[in-house]
This record gives sequence, structure tokens and C-alpha cells, in this order.
Amino acid sequence: MKYPKGIKLDKNHNISYDNRGMDLEHDINLTNEYYVSNDIAFIYKKPTPIKITKVSYPSRDKAVIKEAFFKEPSTTDYNGLYKGKYIDFEAKETNNLTSFPLNNIHKHQVNHIRNIVRHKGIAFLIIRFNRLNKTYLLKGEDFISFLDKNTRKSIPVNYLEEKAFLIKEAYIPRLNYLDIINKEYMEV
Amino acid sequence: MKYPKGIKLDKNHNISYDNRGMDLEHDINLTNEYYVSNDIAFIYKKPTPIKITKVSYPSRDKAVIKEAFFKEPSTTDYNGLYKGKYIDFEAKETNNLTSFPLNNIHKHQVNHIRNIVRHKGIAFLIIRFNRLNKTYLLKGEDFISFLDKNTRKSIPVNYLEEKAFLIKEAYIPRLNYLDIINKEYMEV
Repeated sequence: MKYPKGIKLDKNHNISYDNRGMDLEHDINLTNEYYVSNDIAFIYKKPTPIKITKVSYPSRDKAVIKEAFFKEPSTTDYNGLYKGKYIDFEAKETNNLTSFPLNNIHKHQVNHIRNIVRHKGIAFLIIRFNRLNKTYLLKGEDFISFLDKNTRKSIPVNYLEEKAFLIKEAYIPRLNYLDIINKEYMEV
Repeated sequence: MKYPKGIKLDKNHNISYDNRGMDLEHDINLTNEYYVSNDIAFIYKKPTPIKITKVSYPSRDKAVIKEAFFKEPSTTDYNGLYKGKYIDFEAKETNNLTSFPLNNIHKHQVNHIRNIVRHKGIAFLIIRFNRLNKTYLLKGEDFISFLDKNTRKSIPVNYLEEKAFLIKEAYIPRLNYLDIINKEYMEV
């Protein structure tokens, strides 16, 4: 079963054009679940880092967090293993039409991507332009090279059209980004 | 500066024999920070997975979690990249003297370790016996082989003496487990 690009069914099985932007994470999680259940790759989203300051114990074996704060992540959101290779990426979406704002990626995440590329892991960004209905995979090495050669505060869509790879969207798997990883890193 | 095995300094710089058991995670985190800052490896502890049920916003840009629950982890606690290889491990300590109880490792963690070994990642357990002052590294393949050949509910220290590797403890880095990974996986 395939739906045309950009069309999703909501909980009542009606076609929904809403909240499209909100579900990049959901699409990636579904894709990763597909990879795990088909014994293809073992890539997981890291839990959101939080600092817990209060915990209560309403019963002996149950703990309830009563106060906690969100922390800035020091690495990317997703990592794992594919065909013996270390995979590491960050996924971001934007409502912009012409460029991806770089303030979406924290400084220590950039640094982390540099480290991964330098130590021969496979690092990349998945960038979705919600209003263009396009999702790109930008290789870590090209992202770093863009940063090192530019002082711009955003990556133009033109640059992505040229350097990045469009990820095909489908029903199952939702966003088959490993297809691009296969072509770019696995076929030697 | 090296301290004899099992001896730590507390916050007041006095020798402390207390809480030894509680700091395996701390020792591993310090070791991983050493690896990162020396450009050796990029291995991080995953945040504790929690399910957030209530969030309040005392000011516009500040979110406070008001209710959340701990979730069971679906993978191991630590993963990352070392010399182009995917590294994945779980760290556990026990106060037992003669064996490591297997109920310390969740079923889906065992399954995850099987997946990583099968797909050519480097998976292992770090097991500390608090009262023996010994910390072992057990390779994922040996752990799985133990599980498949035994119906025991714990791994005897004898088995670890024979099959696992004692991790040397030092001041810096605290637990140099990559030393064992070098010898076991990197020298071909």
C-alpha cells in the first residue's frame, strides 16, 4: 500500500495534511523499527537527556520523577550498526522554503559529527523541508566541508540539491535512508 | 598519580573505601571522557529512557518536567565509535562473591547483544564484583555462547576467570577497557 507523497492517514483513517512537519521523528523511528525487525540494521534514537532533581516512591518498586529538566544533547540523536559500520545522524525539519538554518544543530553536535567522520564512522544529517515535501540526506563530510568554506548561517536548498541525496518516501519503509548509505559507502 | 587498587579519594581528599560499588558508571564515564578528550574513541552513555507525562512552562523558554516514569531500556547503556568500529556494551556491578546474576541483564538487552555480534559490531559486558575488587570484560560472543550452553541463572566467577578479561584499574584512565578491545579485535 502506497500513498502519494505528502499524504498521510490520521487516526480516523482520513487523509491528513496536518502536522506533516511533526512526524519526521516518527517516520525515522518507523523506518528504524522496520530495519530491526527485518534484521537489516540496529539504529536507535537516544532518549532525550534530562537532569532528574526529584523522585518520589509511591510504592516500594515504583519510582515517579517529580521534577526534571531538559538538557542539551552532547551528541546526535540516532546511532547504531549497519553491516559492521558505525552509523550516526541527526534529523531536523524546517518550515523554511529556501534554506536550512544552521542554528538547528548545536555546536557540540557539529563537533561530534567531525569526530565521527575523522574516525571513519558514517555520519550524516537528515533534513526535511516540510513545505517542499522533500527530505535530504547530507553526508557528514559534505556538511563539515560546507561549514568550513562558508560563513553563512543556513544551508541553501540549492546546495542540498547539488550535494545531498533525496530520500524516497514510501509506505514501508517510510524513509529508506540506508538505500543511500549503501550506494555511497558500501559499494567499494 | 596512581592509587592502590580499590582505594579512592573522597571529596575531602581522604582515602575512601565507601560507595565503591556505586561508581562503576562514574569510572566508565570518566574513562569515556578521557577517550574523547584524547581523540581516541567516541563512546557515550545513553540517557536513561523515561516517559514524560506532565510538563509545565514557568516561563516562555523554560520547560520543567513535572511527572515522568522510568522505562526499561531496549538496548545497552553505552555505544559509540572506536577506530572505525561500532562499540556497544552494558556495565553492571554485583555484591555477590561467586557469580554474576543474569537477571541483571534484560531479555531485550541480550537480544540486542546477539544482533550486534551477528552484524559484526563489537559488543561486550563490563562486570564489576564490588567485594572482590575485580572488573571483567566479557566479550558478547562468549556471553551469548554461555547463555546458549547453560541453563544457569548466573555466570560463575570461575567462568569469567577463564573466558573474560580483567580490566586494569588506574587513576587515568580509570578503566582502560579499550586496551582489551585492541588486543582482541584490532590486531589481525
